[in-house]
Amino acid sequence: MHVALLQTAVCADETTNMRTAASCIRWAAQQGADIAVLPEMFCCPYDPSIFAQYAQPQGGKRWQQLSALARAHNLYLVAGSVPECEGEHLYNTSFVFAPDGAQIARHRKAHLFDVAFEGKPAFRESDSFCPGHGITTFDTPFCRCGLMICYDIRFPEYALETAEAGADVIFVPACFNQRTGPAHWELLFRARAADNQIFMAGVSSALDWQATYHSYAHSIAVSPWGDVLAQLGTRPENHIVSFDLSRLAAVRRQMPLASHRKSYQNHT
Amino acid sequence: MHVALLQTAVCADETTNMRTAASCIRWAAQQGADIAVLPEMFCCPYDPSIFAQYAQPQGGKRWQQLSALARAHNLYLVAGSVPECEGEHLYNTSFVFAPDGAQIARHRKAHLFDVAFEGKPAFRESDSFCPGHGITTFDTPFCRCGLMICYDIRFPEYALETAEAGADVIFVPACFNQRTGPAHWELLFRARAADNQIFMAGVSSALDWQATYHSYAHSIAVSPWGDVLAQLGTRPENHIVSFDLSRLAAVRRQMPLASHRKSYQNHT
Repeated sequence: MHVALLQTAVCADETTNMRTAASCIRWAAQQGADIAVLPEMFCCPYDPSIFAQYAQPQGGKRWQQLSALARAHNLYLVAGSVPECEGEHLYNTSFVFAPDGAQIARHRKAHLFDVAFEGKPAFRESDSFCPGHGITTFDTPFCRCGLMICYDIRFPEYALETAEAGADVIFVPACFNQRTGPAHWELLFRARAADNQIFMAGVSSALDWQATYHSYAHSIAVSPWGDVLAQLGTRPENHIVSFDLSRLAAVRRQMPLASHRKSYQNHT
Repeated sequence: MHVALLQTAVCADETTNMRTAASCIRWAAQQGADIAVLPEMFCCPYDPSIFAQYAQPQGGKRWQQLSALARAHNLYLVAGSVPECEGEHLYNTSFVFAPDGAQIARHRKAHLFDVAFEGKPAFRESDSFCPGHGITTFDTPFCRCGLMICYDIRFPEYALETAEAGADVIFVPACFNQRTGPAHWELLFRARAADNQIFMAGVSSALDWQATYHSYAHSIAVSPWGDVLAQLGTRPENHIVSFDLSRLAAVRRQMPLASHRKSYQNHT
């Protein structure tokens, strides 16, 4: 299973961003990728004050462009995330398209990033977005896949639920920043992979010091043993990483965590 | 809150091991430690085939010695773990004693280490031990503390339950090996700390290449931000680490994970 990590540069012009995405997806297909993954908010700056300007509904023009790209290049497309509107509500949404262009999953970010780091203005994603609910999985000929967005990865029980629903790989369009990234980005991807004995793949936009939000970038892929298989830098970069799915059974056979897991109280 | 990580050398002679523990606890008290932590199976080799020979009941001679050590040195003692017998059942048990010598917690390892790594004989802790049930916490004047043993740390939902029960620190007497240690020891302590925004402290026995089980050692302490505050090497060594408990509120205020946590299905 060949996965393309597409760490794109993002600017304020959506047409440029979509052209960049299209060009990266074409490259991925040429390299033989089965699944191409774009970053969180690859179509617009990661800035709560402007998300509404870029919002489109499911089935809208951008959605159609993404569907057409999956079909044109005959690959699965985890289309990062985009501001999605439904009625008066906005969501941070990841659409997934099959090689025939059909939408096979939609994940609305369930945990919104509301933080207030010392020395920084508060950042409140919930001022713009409504949260999604529940976990998201989709099936491919390779394996069942899970899908979450950025801050969703902070919650170990969420990855556990997704893995227990049968996901062998979790894709995470994301955009950690220069404070949380160095502290926790690699740690969280490695921990979710090792704890659940699954592959993890996280894709961020490239770092742009001129933007209002400074992405950590460092798109990453991790094995079910918790080894980092690939990690990019901060510049725009595309990378193909191969997941040897036979590793899943090998790791689980040696240390069968799932069968050792116990029941506890509900987290309510 | 001053915590003594006592990474003791363990041999087959219990009298020697208890003398070592006593000497380390005395050192900890002299250094001003509030809480002293011993390794998993500090009283005997970590070898399922011989645990029964070292088993004693709660309140037995070894338990009395440990209680007396806490009282004599006026500190909290997380007394690593020992083979505990109750009727015909054996448990991998950690007793905790208050400075007056009273037992204030007992944790029986809930997740038993049954693994079969390639190129190694299978290791089945459940051939000797019965599992404990539920999480374990105890209160000190500093904060509420949680307690688990070694393989228990593999299960993120277990640490989450413990943190949700109010534990600000989790102590983990442990004995990772030379395969799991380099791969996951630091990762798991950092992830449990960062995910739950709590302090974590893990204490192992020192490495002895002559023993049948090769401990990873590397006793460790981690902050609620996931920073490694202290990590020892492989030789017998004692270390005092100070936990600034004001860090708990500072980290949680900036990124309030607990209030962002959602309810999911039960893990049954």
